[in-house]
Amino acid sequence: MDSLVTSVDTLFVLLGAIMVLAMHSGFAFLEVGTVRYKNQVNALVKLLVDFSVSTVAYFFIGYLVAYGVSFYDGANELVARNGYELVKFFFLLTFAAAIPAIVSGGIAERARFNGQLAATFLMVALVYPLLEGIAWGGRFGIQGMIESWAGQPFHDFAGSIVVHAVGGWIALVAVLFLGPRRGRYGRDGSMQLAHPPSSIPFLALGAWILTVGWFGFNVMSAQAIEGISGLVAVNSLMAMVGGTLAALAAGRNDPGFVHNGPLAGLVAVCAGSDVMHPLGALVLGLVAGALFVKMFTVTQNRMIKIRQVLIVKSPKRKTLFGTCLLRQPMI
Amino acid sequence: MDSLVTSVDTLFVLLGAIMVLAMHSGFAFLEVGTVRYKNQVNALVKLLVDFSVSTVAYFFIGYLVAYGVSFYDGANELVARNGYELVKFFFLLTFAAAIPAIVSGGIAERARFNGQLAATFLMVALVYPLLEGIAWGGRFGIQGMIESWAGQPFHDFAGSIVVHAVGGWIALVAVLFLGPRRGRYGRDGSMQLAHPPSSIPFLALGAWILTVGWFGFNVMSAQAIEGISGLVAVNSLMAMVGGTLAALAAGRNDPGFVHNGPLAGLVAVCAGSDVMHPLGALVLGLVAGALFVKMFTVTQNRMIKIRQVLIVKSPKRKTLFGTCLLRQPMI
Amino acid sequence: MDSLVTSVDTLFVLLGAIMVLAMHSGFAFLEVGTVRYKNQVNALVKLLVDFSVSTVAYFFIGYLVAYGVSFYDGANELVARNGYELVKFFFLLTFAAAIPAIVSGGIAERARFNGQLAATFLMVALVYPLLEGIAWGGRFGIQGMIESWAGQPFHDFAGSIVVHAVGGWIALVAVLFLGPRRGRYGRDGSMQLAHPPSSIPFLALGAWILTVGWFGFNVMSAQAIEGISGLVAVNSLMAMVGGTLAALAAGRNDPGFVHNGPLAGLVAVCAGSDVMHPLGALVLGLVAGALFVKMFTVTQNRMIKIRQVLIVKSPKRKTLFGTCLLRQPMI
Repeated sequence: MDSLVTSVDTLFVLLGAIMVLAMHSGFAFLEVGTVRYKNQVNALVKLLVDFSVSTVAYFFIGYLVAYGVSFYDGANELVARNGYELVKFFFLLTFAAAIPAIVSGGIAERARFNGQLAATFLMVALVYPLLEGIAWGGRFGIQGMIESWAGQPFHDFAGSIVVHAVGGWIALVAVLFLGPRRGRYGRDGSMQLAHPPSSIPFLALGAWILTVGWFGFNVMSAQAIEGISGLVAVNSLMAMVGGTLAALAAGRNDPGFVHNGPLAGLVAVCAGSDVMHPLGALVLGLVAGALFVKMFTVTQNRMIKIRQVLIVKSPKRKTLFGTCLLRQPMI
Repeated sequence: MDSLVTSVDTLFVLLGAIMVLAMHSGFAFLEVGTVRYKNQVNALVKLLVDFSVSTVAYFFIGYLVAYGVSFYDGANELVARNGYELVKFFFLLTFAAAIPAIVSGGIAERARFNGQLAATFLMVALVYPLLEGIAWGGRFGIQGMIESWAGQPFHDFAGSIVVHAVGGWIALVAVLFLGPRRGRYGRDGSMQLAHPPSSIPFLALGAWILTVGWFGFNVMSAQAIEGISGLVAVNSLMAMVGGTLAALAAGRNDPGFVHNGPLAGLVAVCAGSDVMHPLGALVLGLVAGALFVKMFTVTQNRMIKIRQVLIVKSPKRKTLFGTCLLRQPMI
Repeated sequence: MDSLVTSVDTLFVLLGAIMVLAMHSGFAFLEVGTVRYKNQVNALVKLLVDFSVSTVAYFFIGYLVAYGVSFYDGANELVARNGYELVKFFFLLTFAAAIPAIVSGGIAERARFNGQLAATFLMVALVYPLLEGIAWGGRFGIQGMIESWAGQPFHDFAGSIVVHAVGGWIALVAVLFLGPRRGRYGRDGSMQLAHPPSSIPFLALGAWILTVGWFGFNVMSAQAIEGISGLVAVNSLMAMVGGTLAALAAGRNDPGFVHNGPLAGLVAVCAGSDVMHPLGALVLGLVAGALFVKMFTVTQNRMIKIRQVLIVKSPKRKTLFGTCLLRQPMI
């Protein structure tokens, strides 16, 4: 009986790991479809290699930082309890590797390959595991401090903040340092080149793979079969649907917006998908989808101005975050 | 022990829901590959949005019609029994949403987007749930009537009739109202424009996604792990293979026919996949694949004549089924 | 309790079968992307039909040869123990059908369709099942002989030799008989036409599908939930990653090499994935990825010379292995 529970736990978490692994091909195809034709191949190579570098970084350093666990015991010991600890590592790795995948989309067409791989290593070995360890690994007692101050600990069931927002924040910093693609904006900040997606079918393929895989991302975040919850699944569904419909309306049927809509809803719902009501998840998805379209338009049109403001505020920014490595365009 | 069974039931049905959700991307890519290049993007947007509208229609109305169940309780109550009721809803939603997806393929390149969304809402909120409730929900006592008259109730294990035939019938009605694509047939009924598939790779991708997902469609129709049956899986396999080989032979290696062959076999086998012998499933698949090619050719060549006959018989047809909404071409 | 174990075993093996079935679409897209544009459609049709022919060959003959089991009992008996025996057949079929899929890639653009189907039938009905029966079915007492001679039986957990090497050996023989593509090499053996991949995105899609499905290939080789092992999963991951990184380095960022890298690692790790340490799997993947790039380059540049040597050694080779059928180009 106990051994059956352990086996099924292992299967459960492994299925999550496999689904989130598949999501990495979704990141790749979303980027392939979104970038210009000449950069499609770069996007594919980058995502696959980023995942590989992330695995090495997280296996040797990151997982130890986040949870204090490493895998240098003999293979005989690693297979204890069906190797559950190993599939848990695999599952959490696929989350960690999402950080460079998210950043990759943000800085598409602008970063040098080797510089980006170095940044990936740093992010997955150190930056993300520190935050992950604080939120999910109970490290440094920070959850305790939050609990004593706020009455309860910081709750992020499947990574809205820990994964997606962290990825987004890093991407924002990187974008600010790298600047817009050459020729995209004129001196007055008006947009000169639009760069429409090179392939809506590949963009849609990526969006679908991400959407389907997300059910593994969210549901298997329970990490044990006992904790499986249909509520998480249906909240994810409702947020996905809300995001799609709002992006359709706000984006006036634009196919790029429509296919990013479900992803906006799913990003938003991760954190509370275990406790929200499906109606709330639908509303959340609607808000997220509309916000995505709105903010996309705002940042696209005003990006260069935001950047100029920031340049004034932080003149030494170029020494941060390996910008020297990332600075030059990839092409 | 009981709680383990409930958890595994939830996982089992959830896996089915995820696989049939993925099939919706298969419908999209099958249509992308089949339609003309200029309509590829429309097909993608339509399928994703149709799924979203279906979810809203089924969550608020359709599921209540079919099974008398709704989800307005608090989230705390929804998670009882691992939220099994919610994943069952999710699974059955993916079936319900297949109706507009099937219809979508039938009327590709001819329907207006908003009209089609309105029709989707009606189909998934009312039309399909009424039939589903009768066949699977024990509603209106009609299964009892059939049993008292025929000796046993109507049996459709995974939806050959309830899903696929209903979708096909609605599509047939819609096609008859919408008529052929402009310029496709001359006044004498002879075919003028062939409209070959715009992309065999995307068509094939869609067919493969549908084929793989179908194993979730059929096997998880048991709705409880206790009822899992390798017979359902292998019957699906044999029908898929039979459909492929027959479509290859009858279609003279035409790649479009070959890739629709497995789908023809799988549609045919759903209903009896829990009771047939694999050899019977192979024969069934062969018949379905050959029939598909034969009927496709017949309807393509004689479509306009069938339509003309029907116009004579039902002159008021345009008031039915929202035709006014659907009438105009999408482009 | 026992019945729950049986149900979960059936689910476990079925998930493996579905994942390896999906891998067949991966073989198809890997070949679509790799061959010239004019042969893309051929590749798709060939892989789907090869799978279908394989199913028939293995159901009626191959499985009986390998394990002495057939399925002519009534459907009532086949569903005993949730039809576990049937899903086991399905799972092992997806392995058997990998043989023609591997060979197909090897002889892409050179074989006649009907000849190749006949060869597929022979391989899956007889050649592979004989070897499979010896290694995994305990047939002919050969494992006993190896054990008495070497101290322990031949161990190949998930088919590095039984599936991948056998497929590769058959492909090598076929390639030697079929010769290079017309016009590829000049009389002096120098390469004349390069035939670059027609579509890196489809090649990458195929590679990703294969990579993700491989976790079903390896993990579900345990064939019972009790035997699930996170070690197998993480060894597969590490070998995949090692293969990718080595192919990147050895192949100088060539996108075709990079995307075949994970597959090289995964082929190499199958056999010992249940007993190796993850660090060993990483090294194994690195070696496999580098070896793949190296050997690819060597065989591409020296192919015609190897072939000429072999012609001298075996002048009667054309009577073997249905070469007469396979000889002519498909186009």
